[in-house]
Amino acid sequence: MNFGVIGFGYWGPNVVRNLTSLDGSQVLAIAELSPTARKRAQKAYPGIHVTADVSDLMKSPDIDAIAVITPVWTHYELAKAAIENGKHVFVEKPFTSTTAQGEKLIELAQRKNLRIMVDHTFLFTGAVKKIASLLGEGTLGKLYYYDSTRVNLGLFQHDINVLWDLAPHDLSIMDYLINASPEAIVATGQKHLNCHEDIAFMTLYFPEKVIAHINVNWLSPVKVRTTLIGGEKRMLVWNDLEADEKVKIYDKGVNITNREGVYELLVSYRSGDMWAPQLEQVEALRQELSYFVDCIDNGKDPHNDGCAGLRVVRMLEAATDSLNKNGALVYL
Amino acid sequence: MNFGVIGFGYWGPNVVRNLTSLDGSQVLAIAELSPTARKRAQKAYPGIHVTADVSDLMKSPDIDAIAVITPVWTHYELAKAAIENGKHVFVEKPFTSTTAQGEKLIELAQRKNLRIMVDHTFLFTGAVKKIASLLGEGTLGKLYYYDSTRVNLGLFQHDINVLWDLAPHDLSIMDYLINASPEAIVATGQKHLNCHEDIAFMTLYFPEKVIAHINVNWLSPVKVRTTLIGGEKRMLVWNDLEADEKVKIYDKGVNITNREGVYELLVSYRSGDMWAPQLEQVEALRQELSYFVDCIDNGKDPHNDGCAGLRVVRMLEAATDSLNKNGALVYL
Amino acid sequence: MNFGVIGFGYWGPNVVRNLTSLDGSQVLAIAELSPTARKRAQKAYPGIHVTADVSDLMKSPDIDAIAVITPVWTHYELAKAAIENGKHVFVEKPFTSTTAQGEKLIELAQRKNLRIMVDHTFLFTGAVKKIASLLGEGTLGKLYYYDSTRVNLGLFQHDINVLWDLAPHDLSIMDYLINASPEAIVATGQKHLNCHEDIAFMTLYFPEKVIAHINVNWLSPVKVRTTLIGGEKRMLVWNDLEADEKVKIYDKGVNITNREGVYELLVSYRSGDMWAPQLEQVEALRQELSYFVDCIDNGKDPHNDGCAGLRVVRMLEAATDSLNKNGALVYL
Amino acid sequence: MNFGVIGFGYWGPNVVRNLTSLDGSQVLAIAELSPTARKRAQKAYPGIHVTADVSDLMKSPDIDAIAVITPVWTHYELAKAAIENGKHVFVEKPFTSTTAQGEKLIELAQRKNLRIMVDHTFLFTGAVKKIASLLGEGTLGKLYYYDSTRVNLGLFQHDINVLWDLAPHDLSIMDYLINASPEAIVATGQKHLNCHEDIAFMTLYFPEKVIAHINVNWLSPVKVRTTLIGGEKRMLVWNDLEADEKVKIYDKGVNITNREGVYELLVSYRSGDMWAPQLEQVEALRQELSYFVDCIDNGKDPHNDGCAGLRVVRMLEAATDSLNKNGALVYL
Repeated sequence: MNFGVIGFGYWGPNVVRNLTSLDGSQVLAIAELSPTARKRAQKAYPGIHVTADVSDLMKSPDIDAIAVITPVWTHYELAKAAIENGKHVFVEKPFTSTTAQGEKLIELAQRKNLRIMVDHTFLFTGAVKKIASLLGEGTLGKLYYYDSTRVNLGLFQHDINVLWDLAPHDLSIMDYLINASPEAIVATGQKHLNCHEDIAFMTLYFPEKVIAHINVNWLSPVKVRTTLIGGEKRMLVWNDLEADEKVKIYDKGVNITNREGVYELLVSYRSGDMWAPQLEQVEALRQELSYFVDCIDNGKDPHNDGCAGLRVVRMLEAATDSLNKNGALVYL
Repeated sequence: MNFGVIGFGYWGPNVVRNLTSLDGSQVLAIAELSPTARKRAQKAYPGIHVTADVSDLMKSPDIDAIAVITPVWTHYELAKAAIENGKHVFVEKPFTSTTAQGEKLIELAQRKNLRIMVDHTFLFTGAVKKIASLLGEGTLGKLYYYDSTRVNLGLFQHDINVLWDLAPHDLSIMDYLINASPEAIVATGQKHLNCHEDIAFMTLYFPEKVIAHINVNWLSPVKVRTTLIGGEKRMLVWNDLEADEKVKIYDKGVNITNREGVYELLVSYRSGDMWAPQLEQVEALRQELSYFVDCIDNGKDPHNDGCAGLRVVRMLEAATDSLNKNGALVYL
Repeated sequence: MNFGVIGFGYWGPNVVRNLTSLDGSQVLAIAELSPTARKRAQKAYPGIHVTADVSDLMKSPDIDAIAVITPVWTHYELAKAAIENGKHVFVEKPFTSTTAQGEKLIELAQRKNLRIMVDHTFLFTGAVKKIASLLGEGTLGKLYYYDSTRVNLGLFQHDINVLWDLAPHDLSIMDYLINASPEAIVATGQKHLNCHEDIAFMTLYFPEKVIAHINVNWLSPVKVRTTLIGGEKRMLVWNDLEADEKVKIYDKGVNITNREGVYELLVSYRSGDMWAPQLEQVEALRQELSYFVDCIDNGKDPHNDGCAGLRVVRMLEAATDSLNKNGALVYL
Repeated sequence: MNFGVIGFGYWGPNVVRNLTSLDGSQVLAIAELSPTARKRAQKAYPGIHVTADVSDLMKSPDIDAIAVITPVWTHYELAKAAIENGKHVFVEKPFTSTTAQGEKLIELAQRKNLRIMVDHTFLFTGAVKKIASLLGEGTLGKLYYYDSTRVNLGLFQHDINVLWDLAPHDLSIMDYLINASPEAIVATGQKHLNCHEDIAFMTLYFPEKVIAHINVNWLSPVKVRTTLIGGEKRMLVWNDLEADEKVKIYDKGVNITNREGVYELLVSYRSGDMWAPQLEQVEALRQELSYFVDCIDNGKDPHNDGCAGLRVVRMLEAATDSLNKNGALVYL
C-alpha cells in the first residue's frame, strides 16, 4: 500500500515512521508547507519525495492512500480532494470542522468505494482495549459514569479552543466504550488569554442514566490524564501517566436494598481487592495504521471510520453551541 | 464560655473534645436522640449532662452558646430556638436548607445581638490560610480559575444529594478566597441509586473571567481531594490527602504578546521552580472554636458568620435549580 | 484480667486506651515518673490509680499482669520484679538490652508458669497477616529476599541507636515471616550527631540463599516505610504509608532455563497482573492485647513470646557487634 | 571530529545518533559482531561504513576517536588498540574489568597525548548538575550521607553481577559529588539464579563521617531510582523516575545543642519549606559527547577521564573483594 502524507509537523513524523516500518505499507511522498519541516523530512527520509505541493500527491497514480495530518480547518478540502482522486484517507482527529463536512466526505467515499479512517489513536492503546473488554464482559456491571480529566500547560492552538483540541480523545473513547450516543450535552468554560476557551467542562447525558464528564484545561501547572469509570459492580481508574499499572479495577461498589417495611433505601458499601491487569505494550499508532492497511486490503470499513469521526464532531458542535450559551442544555 | 452541643454522631464528638480542652470554654450539656450515642457520650464525659431533650439546653440559664451539629434540615428550628433563648450559635455546614431560613436567623441574631458562626472548618486549615495569603499577596497574579475534585466512595446521605453534602466545603473556601460572588451557576449530575444525585458537576461564573468548577462524586473507587488554582503569574495545586507538601506552587504561566503587525496573539510558556511552603499544623476545628469564643467575648462577628453561611446556601440553591433543569444557567 | 501499666509517654496511652476498652481487661493502676504525664493520665482516666511508685503495681494483689512501656534499659528490672511478684508481663520492643537478660526472664516466667508477650505490634496488622498467609500458601514461591527501608526525620533516642530504635520492627516481622534464623549478620552505619548511630544498614544471611536487608535512618527528609519481598514465583511491595493498597503482589518473576548444549543459563522475565488484596482494618495493638488476655486465660504462650523477643535481641546484639567492627561478618 | 563506534547493541545507537547530529562530529564507521545489529545500523545510516571487523576502524587514517560501547571485559583490548593506533577513546562504563587495566590505558594515553573519556552519562543530567551546584554552594551544609536505591526487574548480564552492572552509576555520581575517595567499603549480596549476584548492598565509608550506601537489585517487581542526600543544613531527595520535580530540597535538619550543665546532647528538629528547582532539560549523552569533542579540540582532559573511570573500578574491585568475603571491611 503506497501512502502520501500531508503534514510533517508534530504528529506527521510518527505517521511516516510507522508507515515506513510496517510490512504492508510505504510512503512515497510527503507534502508540507513549512520549508524547515520539509528539510527535516528530506534529511530523515532521503528516499521519499518531499514537496510543498499537495497536488503532487493527489495526482500521483502510484499513491493509494493519503494521510491528512494537518490542522482541522484544512481536513475537509484535503480529504475531499484525496477522495475525488480515488485515494483512501486517514484523517487526523477531529475529523472535520462541521458535521456537514463530515457527512459530505462519508457520502463521497461511499460513492467511490474508498475507506476513511479517523485517527482516534487511543482506541488502539492497551489501556482502552482492556477497558473495552472489561466493559464488554460485564466486569463493571451496568455503567454509571465516565469522568475524565485531561489537563496540562498548553499547547495553545491558534485555530481551535481547548475543547476541540483535547476533548476529541475522550469523546472518541466514550463513543467506543459506551456504545450509545449522548442525548444532550452541557458545556461551560472560559477564555482568559484570547478568543478561544482555554478551560472547559463538558457533561454528556447518555441513555439509561449514564453520565459522562470531561475536564480539559490548557492552564494547569500539572499534567493529569485520569479517567474514573463507575459501574454497578466495580469501578476503575485509568491513569495514563503511570508507567505501569495504568488501569486499576476496584472490587468496590454499592449495594442497595429496600427492606420490607422500610421506606427509605438502604445503601451499603462493598470493598474488596484491587487489581491492575497487564496491558498490551504495542505502539497504538502502529496498530492503527496496520489495521487501516488491512481494512483497505479487504474492503471493509474500520470501526473508527468516517461515521465514528462524525459522531465526535457532532458532540463537539453541540458542546460549542452549549458553551456559547453558557451551559445551556443542547440536545443531539 | 459555657456550651451546649446538639448532636453526638460523627462530627459532634470532635466539637465536644475541642470545646472541653480549650481554656476559654466548657461543655455543660449534650443533647442527642440516639440512645447508643448518648451512652457513648456519657461514658466519655461523665461530668457532662447528656440528654435526649434539646429544651434542657435551650432553657439552661448557664449555657451561653449552642453548637448545632445535626442534619441540615434541622438547623433552622434548632438555631432559631437557641437564638430566641439568648444563645450564640455555632451551626454545622451547610447553614440552612434555604436562603429564606438563613436570612431569618441572621436577622434574629442581629436583633438579639448574638453571634452566629457557620462551621466552615476548612477555612481554618493551614492549607487554606496559606493559599489565602498567597492570593492576598498577589503571588499567583490575577486569578484565572479554581477547579476542585472531591470524590470518594460514600457516605450516602439520606436527606441531601452529593452537592449539598460535599460542595459546601469548596463553596465556603471559594467564597473566602475569591472574595467575590458568582454571577451565574451551571450544575449537572445524575441519580443512580435513589432520589438524590450521587455525582454532580458545578461551574460558577465569577466576575472578571474567573471560573470555578467543582466535581463531587459518592461513587468513586478512589478518594481525591485536589484543587487546581491558576493565575496569571503562577499556579498552585492543593492536594489535601498528602501528608506533607499539601500545597505546591508552580512558577509556571503563560506570556501573551501581541507583536505589532501580527494579528494573532503569541502565547509562550514560562516554566520554573516549584515550592511547597510549610503549613501550620494545628487542628482546624480547634482554631475555629477558639476564634468563636473570642468573637463572642469581644462582640464581633466572625468572617464565617451567618452571612458567609447564607452565601454558600444561595450558591447551593442556584445549583439545585440548575441541576433540576439539566444544566440551565442560573443567575444569582 | 486486671492490668497495671508502667510508662505513660508516647506509646503507653495507646496501651491503656485499648486495655480499658477491651471486654476482657481493665487497667487498675498506671505508674509513671513524669509528673506532667501523670497529670495527663489522671485527667484522662479519673478512675485509675496513677502513681510514681512502681511497687504499688508490683505489690497489688488485684493486678494480674503488668505492661512495661518504658525505655529498653529498664525492661529487665521491671519485668523481673513483675514476674517475681507473680504477674504476667507485656513488654515493649525490644524485649531487653541483652540476650542474657532475655534468657533470665524467660526462665523465670517458665518457673512461675507466667506468660511473657513482647510488643511486636506489626505482627497484628492486616498487612503482615496477609503477607504471612501469602508466603504460607506458596504464592511467592521460594523466598529470595526481604528488603526494608524505614527512614524518617527523628525522633532521636538518647539511650539507643537507630538500629535498636527502628530495626526491631523489621526483625520481628522477618522472624515471623521467614520462619528461620539468620546465620550471619553484617551491619554498617555512622554517628553524625552524638554517640549513637543515626543511620545504619543491616544485611542478614538466612539459610537457603535467603538474604534480608534493612535500611534505617533518623536523618531522612522524607518518611519511607517500604518493604520489597522477592520470591521465585512472585514478588510483593508493602508500602505501609499508603492509605489503601498497602500490599501489592506482582505476577512477575524470572524463568531460568539451561538448554542442552548451552553453557550459560538463559534468564527470561515474566510479567503479569498486579493485585492488591483487601486487608483487615482492625487496630493491631487492640488485637495483640486481646490475644494476650486470651493466652493468659488459656495458659498458652503467644507466638510473640519471650523467645520471639529474645531472637530479635540476639539479632540486634550481633548487628551491634558487626557495626562496632565496621561491618565484620558476625555469626549467630 | 571523525568517530568510529564499536558496538551497536542497546546503547551504541544512542551514541551514533548523537555523534551524527552534533555539529562538531560525524561517524565514519560502525563495528559490530551481530549480523542483525549490523543490518539495523546499515538501514538507519546508509552513509556510514558498517563492518564486523574492528581493525577497519583502528586502521582508518580518517578516524580521530573511537567509542567503545561493548561489554566491560572487551574494553581493555579495544581501548588499548585504539590508543595505540592514535585514536582518542570514549569508553562505556565501567571503564575496565580491573584497576591494572585502567592504569595501563591511562598511562598509554598520556604517553600518546590522547584523551580518554569514560561514559559516566549521569554527570551530564540536569539533576546531577543541580545537585553538584547545591553541594558546591553549601546549600545542604556539611554532608552526612548519600543513600541510593537502584532496583528493577533485570536485565541480567551474563558476564557481570548486579554491582558491576548498576552501581557504576552511583559510584561515578558520588565520586563527582562528594569530591573525596572512600576509605573503606563493605558489600553484601546474594546469587539466586546463577553465578552472579542479583541483589547487592554496598556501604562506603568516606572521610569526615560521610557514609554512602547503594542498594542494587535485578529482582525487584518495581523500578526505583531514588537517592537521599542528607546534610547538616538541608536534605534532598532525587527521584529520577519523576517526570518533573526530580530533585526536591527540604529545609529540614537537626539542631544540636549542648547546654551548659547538661551532659547529653539536645537534638531538635527543624522543618521548613520544600522546593524543586527547575532542571536543565537537555539530553545528557549529547552534552557529554559535545564536551568530549571540545576536550579533544582543546587538548584538555575531561573531568570524567580515565582517572575518574579508574576510581570507580577501584571501588568496584574493593566491593567485589568484600562481597566475596561476605561483607568484610576492605580498605582502599
